Amino acid sequence: MSEPGRPPADAMTNPRADRVRDVAKLAGRSGRLKRSQFFLEGPAGVREALSAHRDCMDAGGSAVVEAVYASVECLKRYPELMELASHPASKLQIRVASEMVLSAMTDTVTPQGVVAVCNFVDVPLAEVLAAKPKLIAMLCRVQDPGNAGTVLRAADAAGADAVIFSNSSVDIYNPKAVRSTAGSLFHLPVVRGVELSDVVAAAKAAGMGVLAADGYGQLNLDLLQDESAARAFEQQIPDSQYVLEDPTLWLFGNEAQGLAGEEKALADHRVAVPVYGEAESLNLGTAATVCLYASARAQRRSN
Amino acid sequence: MSEPGRPPADAMTNPRADRVRDVAKLAGRSGRLKRSQFFLEGPAGVREALSAHRDCMDAGGSAVVEAVYASVECLKRYPELMELASHPASKLQIRVASEMVLSAMTDTVTPQGVVAVCNFVDVPLAEVLAAKPKLIAMLCRVQDPGNAGTVLRAADAAGADAVIFSNSSVDIYNPKAVRSTAGSLFHLPVVRGVELSDVVAAAKAAGMGVLAADGYGQLNLDLLQDESAARAFEQQIPDSQYVLEDPTLWLFGNEAQGLAGEEKALADHRVAVPVYGEAESLNLGTAATVCLYASARAQRRSN
Repeated sequence: MSEPGRPPADAMTNPRADRVRDVAKLAGRSGRLKRSQFFLEGPAGVREALSAHRDCMDAGGSAVVEAVYASVECLKRYPELMELASHPASKLQIRVASEMVLSAMTDTVTPQGVVAVCNFVDVPLAEVLAAKPKLIAMLCRVQDPGNAGTVLRAADAAGADAVIFSNSSVDIYNPKAVRSTAGSLFHLPVVRGVELSDVVAAAKAAGMGVLAADGYGQLNLDLLQDESAARAFEQQIPDSQYVLEDPTLWLFGNEAQGLAGEEKALADHRVAVPVYGEAESLNLGTAATVCLYASARAQRRSN
Repeated sequence: MSEPGRPPADAMTNPRADRVRDVAKLAGRSGRLKRSQFFLEGPAGVREALSAHRDCMDAGGSAVVEAVYASVECLKRYPELMELASHPASKLQIRVASEMVLSAMTDTVTPQGVVAVCNFVDVPLAEVLAAKPKLIAMLCRVQDPGNAGTVLRAADAAGADAVIFSNSSVDIYNPKAVRSTAGSLFHLPVVRGVELSDVVAAAKAAGMGVLAADGYGQLNLDLLQDESAARAFEQQIPDSQYVLEDPTLWLFGNEAQGLAGEEKALADHRVAVPVYGEAESLNLGTAATVCLYASARAQRRSN
């Protein structure tokens, strides 16, 4: 077992080694699907992956992290990586690799000193719904990896129970998407490759309301929030069209076109984040955050 | 005057012409500062610029747009560009240019068919404060152009009265920043190149409260929102530490480090967006959006 500050002698130095090429192949979707693995780089992300791995192995689950490659400099600067990997439950050994090797693995201009190869962490939809979720975000046909990661991170911050990616969305294991999640990929259940109509049907069957985020929606998010606050203060209010405290599946659409007509039609309501200025809309990440926080706030107040 | 569907014969076809090089120089900060001009590309952004230009000229103001270059295809597809430019107040003529020329102007891989050269639109701080603003966002040492544009767009959506960029922030006229604003650069006053301490002093003198967005802040944004809702419902609540309905200057820090200690010290309070899940924080754009919408909602309810 490696010890902090004492890198093993068998450092990887050949950027054309088979193992390096195997990691590099995970940059592409087909390479990832073939092995059900992805990579992430950088000390912050790898730390989150190693923590999740330790907790999962400790609980008798399967391995989250398959391998970690790091430069000597990185291990010196971030000794907690070695500590996390050396945890008895982890059964991991960090392989020391040259900067050339790390660079060849990830094809980034400025390699960040450490790369982890991880197993896919997504779970089946049924598992998510069986846990009686109160708040889920679903992304439909989202194309930009940065946006996908941003929404996952925001959903985590809002305390959502899961994030679902439709089968026509960008791959959440895309390196740029993984980076944008800032570790949230390991914090809450993720479902991928599912059909929107199947998800909506299952969520409704599980007792969830379904809201479509839509700039032209007939319900105003601020009004729903005010009604929710009014209920908390036991005010008399007219019947609300949607009770924000209820278990909710939020649908978010493609960054350029939003949700398509047939996608919106699946929801119980279309809800707009009000625009008070002259902007036509918010971008996907900011709109989703406002929606998810509105639900989180209402639900936590009613507990 | 050019007519829709009938491009003039003097189309620009030489990508090495002086005029093309002059536009290309606006991609760099020094080139922009030298001429107090910037460029933006794409039909959506140019449309916003042309609308702002027409309204400004109509009101007897100075020119927002100096020149527009477009491909024949783009003008056919977006006839409103020609209409906007041909407005009597506009005094503009769209120059037809080849794709090669447009590509040389903007150095983008996929040119979007139209480029506008615009004059700087920022205004002095004193002008903003003289208008008795209720909500201002200030970005301190923000480095990523996409983040800067995202916050400007979110501030516009939240109906903020102005956005201020500290002198150590990324240039809002950077092409990528301009693109991320999605036109909001022309919707609300922008102030740039100012010192944080000067802005805070002037804002306080103008009667504004100053809040620092800070993940470790002692005030919880959701609590402030609940107190604001309680006031709206005339509930008895204990004295609030900050009345969200009051005129507010929000400070947002660098995307990696947040606000520095001495920056936070200038604010009246440090306010955290609560994190309900395991995420360490929200990213800059999403956090700023939640803060600005919280203020906007409280202020509009109290009107």
